[in-house]
Amino acid sequence: MTRLIIDTDPGIDDAFAIALACASPEVELIGVTTVFGNVGLAHTTRNALRLLALYGREDVPVAAGADRPLVHPHAHRSRHVHGEDGLSGLSGSLPERRTGVAGTDAVSLMVRLLDESPEPVTIAPIGPLTNIALLLAAHPSVQSKIERLVIMGGGLSGGNMTAAAEFNIWSDPEAARRVLVEESVPTTLVPMDMTMQCSVDGAWLDQLAASGPRAAALVGLTATYRTHYRSALGRDGLVIHDAVAVAEAIRPGLLHTTAMPVEVDCGQGPARGMTIGDRRAVEVRMQDTPREIDVALTADLDEVRQFLQTRLST
Amino acid sequence: MTRLIIDTDPGIDDAFAIALACASPEVELIGVTTVFGNVGLAHTTRNALRLLALYGREDVPVAAGADRPLVHPHAHRSRHVHGEDGLSGLSGSLPERRTGVAGTDAVSLMVRLLDESPEPVTIAPIGPLTNIALLLAAHPSVQSKIERLVIMGGGLSGGNMTAAAEFNIWSDPEAARRVLVEESVPTTLVPMDMTMQCSVDGAWLDQLAASGPRAAALVGLTATYRTHYRSALGRDGLVIHDAVAVAEAIRPGLLHTTAMPVEVDCGQGPARGMTIGDRRAVEVRMQDTPREIDVALTADLDEVRQFLQTRLST
Amino acid sequence: MTRLIIDTDPGIDDAFAIALACASPEVELIGVTTVFGNVGLAHTTRNALRLLALYGREDVPVAAGADRPLVHPHAHRSRHVHGEDGLSGLSGSLPERRTGVAGTDAVSLMVRLLDESPEPVTIAPIGPLTNIALLLAAHPSVQSKIERLVIMGGGLSGGNMTAAAEFNIWSDPEAARRVLVEESVPTTLVPMDMTMQCSVDGAWLDQLAASGPRAAALVGLTATYRTHYRSALGRDGLVIHDAVAVAEAIRPGLLHTTAMPVEVDCGQGPARGMTIGDRRAVEVRMQDTPREIDVALTADLDEVRQFLQTRLST
Amino acid sequence: MTRLIIDTDPGIDDAFAIALACASPEVELIGVTTVFGNVGLAHTTRNALRLLALYGREDVPVAAGADRPLVHPHAHRSRHVHGEDGLSGLSGSLPERRTGVAGTDAVSLMVRLLDESPEPVTIAPIGPLTNIALLLAAHPSVQSKIERLVIMGGGLSGGNMTAAAEFNIWSDPEAARRVLVEESVPTTLVPMDMTMQCSVDGAWLDQLAASGPRAAALVGLTATYRTHYRSALGRDGLVIHDAVAVAEAIRPGLLHTTAMPVEVDCGQGPARGMTIGDRRAVEVRMQDTPREIDVALTADLDEVRQFLQTRLST
Repeated sequence: MTRLIIDTDPGIDDAFAIALACASPEVELIGVTTVFGNVGLAHTTRNALRLLALYGREDVPVAAGADRPLVHPHAHRSRHVHGEDGLSGLSGSLPERRTGVAGTDAVSLMVRLLDESPEPVTIAPIGPLTNIALLLAAHPSVQSKIERLVIMGGGLSGGNMTAAAEFNIWSDPEAARRVLVEESVPTTLVPMDMTMQCSVDGAWLDQLAASGPRAAALVGLTATYRTHYRSALGRDGLVIHDAVAVAEAIRPGLLHTTAMPVEVDCGQGPARGMTIGDRRAVEVRMQDTPREIDVALTADLDEVRQFLQTRLST
Repeated sequence: MTRLIIDTDPGIDDAFAIALACASPEVELIGVTTVFGNVGLAHTTRNALRLLALYGREDVPVAAGADRPLVHPHAHRSRHVHGEDGLSGLSGSLPERRTGVAGTDAVSLMVRLLDESPEPVTIAPIGPLTNIALLLAAHPSVQSKIERLVIMGGGLSGGNMTAAAEFNIWSDPEAARRVLVEESVPTTLVPMDMTMQCSVDGAWLDQLAASGPRAAALVGLTATYRTHYRSALGRDGLVIHDAVAVAEAIRPGLLHTTAMPVEVDCGQGPARGMTIGDRRAVEVRMQDTPREIDVALTADLDEVRQFLQTRLST
Repeated sequence: MTRLIIDTDPGIDDAFAIALACASPEVELIGVTTVFGNVGLAHTTRNALRLLALYGREDVPVAAGADRPLVHPHAHRSRHVHGEDGLSGLSGSLPERRTGVAGTDAVSLMVRLLDESPEPVTIAPIGPLTNIALLLAAHPSVQSKIERLVIMGGGLSGGNMTAAAEFNIWSDPEAARRVLVEESVPTTLVPMDMTMQCSVDGAWLDQLAASGPRAAALVGLTATYRTHYRSALGRDGLVIHDAVAVAEAIRPGLLHTTAMPVEVDCGQGPARGMTIGDRRAVEVRMQDTPREIDVALTADLDEVRQFLQTRLST
Repeated sequence: MTRLIIDTDPGIDDAFAIALACASPEVELIGVTTVFGNVGLAHTTRNALRLLALYGREDVPVAAGADRPLVHPHAHRSRHVHGEDGLSGLSGSLPERRTGVAGTDAVSLMVRLLDESPEPVTIAPIGPLTNIALLLAAHPSVQSKIERLVIMGGGLSGGNMTAAAEFNIWSDPEAARRVLVEESVPTTLVPMDMTMQCSVDGAWLDQLAASGPRAAALVGLTATYRTHYRSALGRDGLVIHDAVAVAEAIRPGLLHTTAMPVEVDCGQGPARGMTIGDRRAVEVRMQDTPREIDVALTADLDEVRQFLQTRLST
């Protein structure tokens, strides 16, 4: 049984990830925290509440966290990908949750959940890493209660937000550097290199939509996102980045990882927000390379797609 | 009556600042939080406890905060200025405090003190701004309980750590940018431009040392610091930067401020950690200048020195 | 007798500088090279030709140089200061020169002039330093033929283009770093700290305009520039930055210099293009400070204004 | 018949590249210019002369160019890869050339060769791009005489000097940005992504060494380089990066290219010197992407190795 906190900025693929956690019997979803990202914090928080309501989860505490990056202003909202409200303009089609947000901020909620948990907790950050950086930097004693971070973010061979950087890391490179390079909590990074391989096609989506009303509602949210990916992929399909990371959080080992030092570029040039994995032979690296983290780069792709389909269909 | 929290990395001039708060009747010192800086966190915390013990303040809660900057590693310890232990190697000459640190981190202590305070609190950050950035970013609701930040840091016309940057800001430029540029809490910055004008000479120190045992102990801590300033100033004397800022916190208006936009350079070049004040006429500034903060640039210098002498002599 | 090359981007204050060189008997003006800056290269080159024509100088070879910075794009044209054509929209009022540009580029012309000169030559760069960086980097053997660079640029306590950076250095920080930090040719920097002190007022301008037709034409060009400075200075007057530097080139020692290490920030942050002078005591500087150059910071201001008035009136 | 200038910093793989040009009948090698890089300029120039002497080429003019990067100091000499003298400490085993360097700098020699050439010339820059940036920026009229630049440099998926950057581009990112991003001359980039695929093994080297005395001398130079690659590749073999680029210069189309925008990171962070190729679908790129250049990413690898073997064996 994995005790799980999801830190999220829904967003379409975040919606699939939250749904996956709700639908997985081996997960105890003990909290959801929200962060700015795909859209502003008010929208991501409202979306998180409604997605939990779709799955009848009035019990999961939700708290709103950072409304902007750690150091520099956020330049962007990905409206053309996720729509104005983060869910293709369709968030109103989801049920409202009766239970609102907790009366505290995201970092405080995470501190409390970790303190109270009898066992270490997995955190799946699937948005900008601002909340996580703040949690670890402001309250370092919580580290011992964190089983693992399973982070959706980055790209070793280029990005989607810029030629170099993936959206989540690009949105707060300074927070990402804190978490990926300076902290020591066990960390699995699920970059675009992995998630792009796990893209699903139209048939997969149709099958899912036909499986039941919740799944149909979920697939129904993908309108603008699907249009975007038709351009990006050159064919009908989606990349549900965040759901791939949460799948790994739920079923450790589903993705195959390689340990390597990873850096995050925090400059103001064209590499801003890039995650740089050092793939050189250990023998020729310089000294002072950063710590190694586990980077997911391969998987049995059919197994991943099948796992997602099966769970989301229930 | 000013309710005051000091966030500090003692350090010689921090010692004078803490002493000043302890010795001032119009101050209620409700907490002291520590941060890495002049020396490592273990030393700054131990020093804070002992300095409070010197003034018989067992009641003031102390909590340790950040042991490193927000984003990038700290390159430096100013041992040649403050000595290996931060107090010229003489911290062992101070009494030990019976009451140790609070069982919580610095940010949590500040949150609690602010929440519990019936009135807004002044915070005087006189070290790197890491704890303050974390407080404001992780727990934004505390803002309404902060009367004012009175920050020792920066230099509009150059620095001491580098040609461009003053030590506190240089130590964590990203945290400084968050606090000075991105936050909106009322802020008074006391930069080197101000504190250097308030340098005290050998006679001032001798007079203080002669006033009583506590003051003598304080002046006794200045050994390596005084040697450093003999080189930096070209004459016998000291700059007790942090005490000047705390003096302003205690007696608002002691320093004369000018409102101006201030930026912090967070690059990796020669200006890293510089505080850039925009002193151009408003009419010729570009758009998108950052918010204005109050920067202390002038004062009745004799009044400042007299205030410090009088209070520290009691 | 100073053999002089002016590298320039006229611009109003450049116009005064060129006029000063034409009007000074102890100067042999052996060439004028142009660079982008206040306006684009086509305008600065046309303006240089016409200003020489105003002084009857058909003999001075003119060559066009860099139309953009060394590494990064130029973001700005200072049209609101110098007008669309660089001369308040009044360049058409100047006579056309019969002799056009030399059939070669600016760097090649400088190489030839230096090679052919029997004695070392002073170069007064009063625009972005692109041409000069290219000259020194591509053709290092010319160094021995350069007596001195007298550069108008920079500001140790802030700028005019941004809060941190003066226009010429900001326009090409990478070229400026090459020249000021990496080269070893004797260099005098005349920063805004100096030129702002030498501002002239309305009476000075009126007296100059009354002295003769050339001077009247020169003063006539100042329309938009004078409007800008009325805002920047808060009173009627002008700062003829470039003419102050050329005055020092003509009469070495007119300005009083201090030797200090100077760095140029080449990052993409708020300090981009700042000239950082290290004014700390030598004893407290770190190792690896850059070379020292001579920075003009004080002068007998009446003498400077009188010198400019006298020469420009002839 | 390709008229060719090689700009080089020999270097073992540069040696193979120069040899290839000397041994190829369809090439008229009209000049060789040298640059700092693998080792200092004095060594690279001496090595270039001796390698030409090995092939009996007293006729090819050689000129020394930049001894350091355009803007920032060079931090490194790759002695552990190429040996102290750039040729595994074995440069003394090569014959001395009777004809020394031309009495001019590299940029001036290139200008003269281009001006005098009846037809456009291909330039193969296989070291840091300093000379080429200076040529194009200082003397823009030469562009019309350049057929194509075929550049060995960069890596779209990581580097060898750092995790992000390949050695040549890392050595002078500012010069690389000028050439790759800001100039418009037709450019083919041959990055590590391509050259690593063309690695040769021990058998290939043994066959080459057995083909004749010149080839044996060439292979004899690879001692430290071969040791380095045993670690980097995990097997016996070499990557003769520069020879792959010169092969493309000699036989256009040998490598298969993709047109894409390429940026160079010029910050001081972990991505410094990285070449960022934008591999996203055109539809999802932002505006203001840089110009497209031709990047060699695939080839018939057997054909490349065979071409190199055949030519170097003659």
